[in-house]
Amino acid sequence: MKLVVAIVQNEDVGRLLDSLQKEGIMATKLSTSGGFLRSGNTTLLIGVEDDRVGEVIDIISQKCKTRKQIVSSPVTNNPSMGAYIPYPIEITIGGATIFVLNIERFEKV
Amino acid sequence: MKLVVAIVQNEDVGRLLDSLQKEGIMATKLSTSGGFLRSGNTTLLIGVEDDRVGEVIDIISQKCKTRKQIVSSPVTNNPSMGAYIPYPIEITIGGATIFVLNIERFEKV
Amino acid sequence: MKLVVAIVQNEDVGRLLDSLQKEGIMATKLSTSGGFLRSGNTTLLIGVEDDRVGEVIDIISQKCKTRKQIVSSPVTNNPSMGAYIPYPIEITIGGATIFVLNIERFEKV
Ligand code: NI
Ligand code: NI
Ligand code: NI
Repeated sequence: MKLVVAIVQNEDVGRLLDSLQKEGIMATKLSTSGGFLRSGNTTLLIGVEDDRVGEVIDIISQKCKTRKQIVSSPVTNNPSMGAYIPYPIEITIGGATIFVLNIERFEKV
Repeated sequence: MKLVVAIVQNEDVGRLLDSLQKEGIMATKLSTSGGFLRSGNTTLLIGVEDDRVGEVIDIISQKCKTRKQIVSSPVTNNPSMGAYIPYPIEITIGGATIFVLNIERFEKV
Repeated sequence: MKLVVAIVQNEDVGRLLDSLQKEGIMATKLSTSGGFLRSGNTTLLIGVEDDRVGEVIDIISQKCKTRKQIVSSPVTNNPSMGAYIPYPIEITIGGATIFVLNIERFEKV
């Protein structure tokens, strides 16, 4: 068996867990208090048979893939800018980091 | 050395940590915010010498084994049922999922 | 690649993450609710290339090394002691437990 350790964005966790559950794949959600690189992520521990690792990575990829989103520009506090006129900006959301580890022994009690 | 990753029910954690401590076995408790399969679990990281893995699994098994418990039936909200008469029902509690990983290098600083 | 699992004292986490970031090393911070051996620790997951494991352990060692600190004695509640006169005592702070695991497969999506 393999242990898939997946660090995903909080906003993607719900849809990812739904998809894994539909395939009967167990996941344990760890509270992640945020690394320095990005805030608001969650670490999942997913135990799977060796021959399902590719499937798990595909599901994570589909649900968490890095993608662009158009949002309104944030309000700034610069008074010299006068009236605030929001404009569209492109941000990157999602993304996942996945580590696959070998499980030497697996037990359910 | 081996890293035992054990996902156990919250209600069993205290007794399990007591038993591990009596044997001088170190455990680190991660906050688990609940996977989709069950709520209220905790993930423990337990570093042990190779020849003590069986002992650790035995202790987890003793303290966390799936078992039946008789409880009163939950109150329902169905008004057609009239007066609520509780009856005994059998539920399953406990249980643990255990992954054993190989530690390539171990350091204490 | 290797996954470095480091259990460090809360008070050392900020300086450690700063140092790792300066070297471009990614860390994910898990909320640790405290094992039985010590309270107030944090578990970090650090994914690195094989040839940087030594560097990561060196950084953890520098930032988290066990060291002595002189503090005022805690106030006791023993009334027979009369007026409380604080005296200096030496305590041990810091320290880290490090497990290095092999990553069989690594993906960023
Ligand atoms: Ni296997
Ligand atoms: Ni070993
Ligand atoms: Ni490698």
